[in-house]
Amino acid sequence: MHLSDRITHITGGGSDGWDVFYKARRMIEDGIPVVELTIGEHDIRTDASILEAMDVSAMGGHTGYAMVPGILPLRKAVAERIEKTTGVPTTYENVLITPGGQAALFAAHTAVCDHGDKAIYLDPYYATYPGLIRGVGAIPVPVQTRAEDAFQPRAEDIAAHAQGATSLLINTPNNPTGTVYSRETLDGIADVCKQNDLWLISDEVYDSQVWQGAHISPRALPDMAERTLVIGSMSKSHAMTGSRVGWIVGPKDAIDHLINLATHTTYGVAGFIQDAAHFALAQGPELEEQVSAPFRRRRVLAQEILAGQNTVGLIPAQGAMYLMLDLRATRLSGEEFALKLLDAHHIAVMPGESFGAAAAGHVRVAMTIDDDRFAHALKTLCAFADGLVNAAK
Amino acid sequence: MHLSDRITHITGGGSDGWDVFYKARRMIEDGIPVVELTIGEHDIRTDASILEAMDVSAMGGHTGYAMVPGILPLRKAVAERIEKTTGVPTTYENVLITPGGQAALFAAHTAVCDHGDKAIYLDPYYATYPGLIRGVGAIPVPVQTRAEDAFQPRAEDIAAHAQGATSLLINTPNNPTGTVYSRETLDGIADVCKQNDLWLISDEVYDSQVWQGAHISPRALPDMAERTLVIGSMSKSHAMTGSRVGWIVGPKDAIDHLINLATHTTYGVAGFIQDAAHFALAQGPELEEQVSAPFRRRRVLAQEILAGQNTVGLIPAQGAMYLMLDLRATRLSGEEFALKLLDAHHIAVMPGESFGAAAAGHVRVAMTIDDDRFAHALKTLCAFADGLVNAAK
Repeated sequence: MHLSDRITHITGGGSDGWDVFYKARRMIEDGIPVVELTIGEHDIRTDASILEAMDVSAMGGHTGYAMVPGILPLRKAVAERIEKTTGVPTTYENVLITPGGQAALFAAHTAVCDHGDKAIYLDPYYATYPGLIRGVGAIPVPVQTRAEDAFQPRAEDIAAHAQGATSLLINTPNNPTGTVYSRETLDGIADVCKQNDLWLISDEVYDSQVWQGAHISPRALPDMAERTLVIGSMSKSHAMTGSRVGWIVGPKDAIDHLINLATHTTYGVAGFIQDAAHFALAQGPELEEQVSAPFRRRRVLAQEILAGQNTVGLIPAQGAMYLMLDLRATRLSGEEFALKLLDAHHIAVMPGESFGAAAAGHVRVAMTIDDDRFAHALKTLCAFADGLVNAAK
Repeated sequence: MHLSDRITHITGGGSDGWDVFYKARRMIEDGIPVVELTIGEHDIRTDASILEAMDVSAMGGHTGYAMVPGILPLRKAVAERIEKTTGVPTTYENVLITPGGQAALFAAHTAVCDHGDKAIYLDPYYATYPGLIRGVGAIPVPVQTRAEDAFQPRAEDIAAHAQGATSLLINTPNNPTGTVYSRETLDGIADVCKQNDLWLISDEVYDSQVWQGAHISPRALPDMAERTLVIGSMSKSHAMTGSRVGWIVGPKDAIDHLINLATHTTYGVAGFIQDAAHFALAQGPELEEQVSAPFRRRRVLAQEILAGQNTVGLIPAQGAMYLMLDLRATRLSGEEFALKLLDAHHIAVMPGESFGAAAAGHVRVAMTIDDDRFAHALKTLCAFADGLVNAAK
């Protein structure tokens, strides 16, 4: 039976750079202990106090259909959070609660892109970006960022692809690079959006994980609130990845239509999960700092380890739970290096190529295991890279 | 800012027949007690044992990303359930777990329909059907069923619209009509699908609520498993409407692509909710009978009440939690009758027109309040209709 062209073309065919990940998983199944530094998931679970709030809600009877746009207290809490970080007046009417950040990204692109529209995203990119754009029926247009700029996008590179495009998707703090976009970068992006009448879809799910500089939401920039859809989530900030709860914040008119879309695509989010999310947000920044502390700590560890050698380059790692390591001194592709490292030392990292052409010759390291094992793995990686360079001399 | 044509056209504009519903809600907000027989939601909550299973799972650490296709035990339990009712060999590879039946319907249409494809649905219909088809970018094609057939679809009516169409969406047991499609009806539908190479999307979320006859899944019919996507959900069978967990069952190739779509649209379903659903399915039919018993009982009550008068006609109500009442003797539209009933007696029912042209002159009554109030409301409705007819003589 014939399936839609759209669904059969979501992923572009060919290797997607995830071979290392799957090989590591097979090794683990075969009983080989592998140090996995691949996936962006905390090594802690959701805090028990949040799960207790969920249980109280469910046992208290919040098990029927919740309002499709989200429960009012959660919409208000998200609005307050966004207003605080942007200074832009934001009410619950600017907020749609979604079943996770991925659903929010898909809905946001559905809201602005029609079939065949061009949707820009920046390379390197989070793995689902081009596929979700194809899933919406739009045409993904990658714009390369550059290792020599520490992957801060250049406005002129985006402008070169902006004519006739509908939307631009950005992600700061960035997965996979750990880059936090500067005010200058964001001002340039805002100008391109305004000059080309683009929607800006701003994925800010790592907004609580900033180690250097400050997170700036483009919703805060002049005349940008009206053309920006902010994507947020409880996953990374509160270690609630499995709860699947996120949001879109944007102009009321867009949110009204997105609510209508939600009625036809998801019919809302579990009320007891929303109550748990509301409880978690009400705990304030302390809980978020507690959740992000391990990554902050390990990033310092990594800086110390990397400072003691000259082979492996570290992209500044200003935010998010990843390190992007430059291995071009080895003259290997990121995938070749990652496969060799996995074979030799049973350490799994993601090839930069998994995230697009711009990160070729790099690997992404998730800082998601305990400090001692993390430090040991990173030292091993550096020594291995050094050995490869020396052997080639 | 310009939004996509797709999102701004999901609902077709003009009154959608939900005025009665919103008016009732406003009356309640103003302190007027209204008997609401509008929404398809149980008057019980999710069973505490299911919620306890969810709490055990969450507290036990199942709070990280669950596998995108669904957890294996739940996929297997759904496969077993479907194999039992259809006789068709079904494994976990035929199953994708979704965040609810609505998400399953949207994903299924995305899987088979490209932009501009024609997707057939039957009138009267569940409120989201035409909008979800438009949301996918396809063209909704309604086919009228007839009150004189108790809304059993005629194959020839569907065949008249089938040429060049991509899919047919059916729903048995049916919301809003309470009709359970007969073997003859389904054989005719299967022939039309095979003759016109249509995908059949079969919404079976009311499969545990059958009061007369038997539920037949078209997946069970000859040569239909390969072209049928079955939509299921825990919402109605286990009073888990708010948990948002459902599934699609279909050919492995389609499910493989649907898993890929899920990676890009939802990124899976909360693991603790899936554990709760798995627990609930493992309780077997007793729990489902307990959940459906109130509707079974109230349907008998309704038959007795309706038998005592001649003004209001009852569509047989073979399944689901609704009664479809024929009020054409009053010479009013369903909406006119519903508004008058709301004003005179503070009883809210859904106009048939809310569900399409085929149910004009009818109202849908949800059997979702306790037996005594339900019986009283239904008697009041009948007497009111009788008074209208007599006044017009």
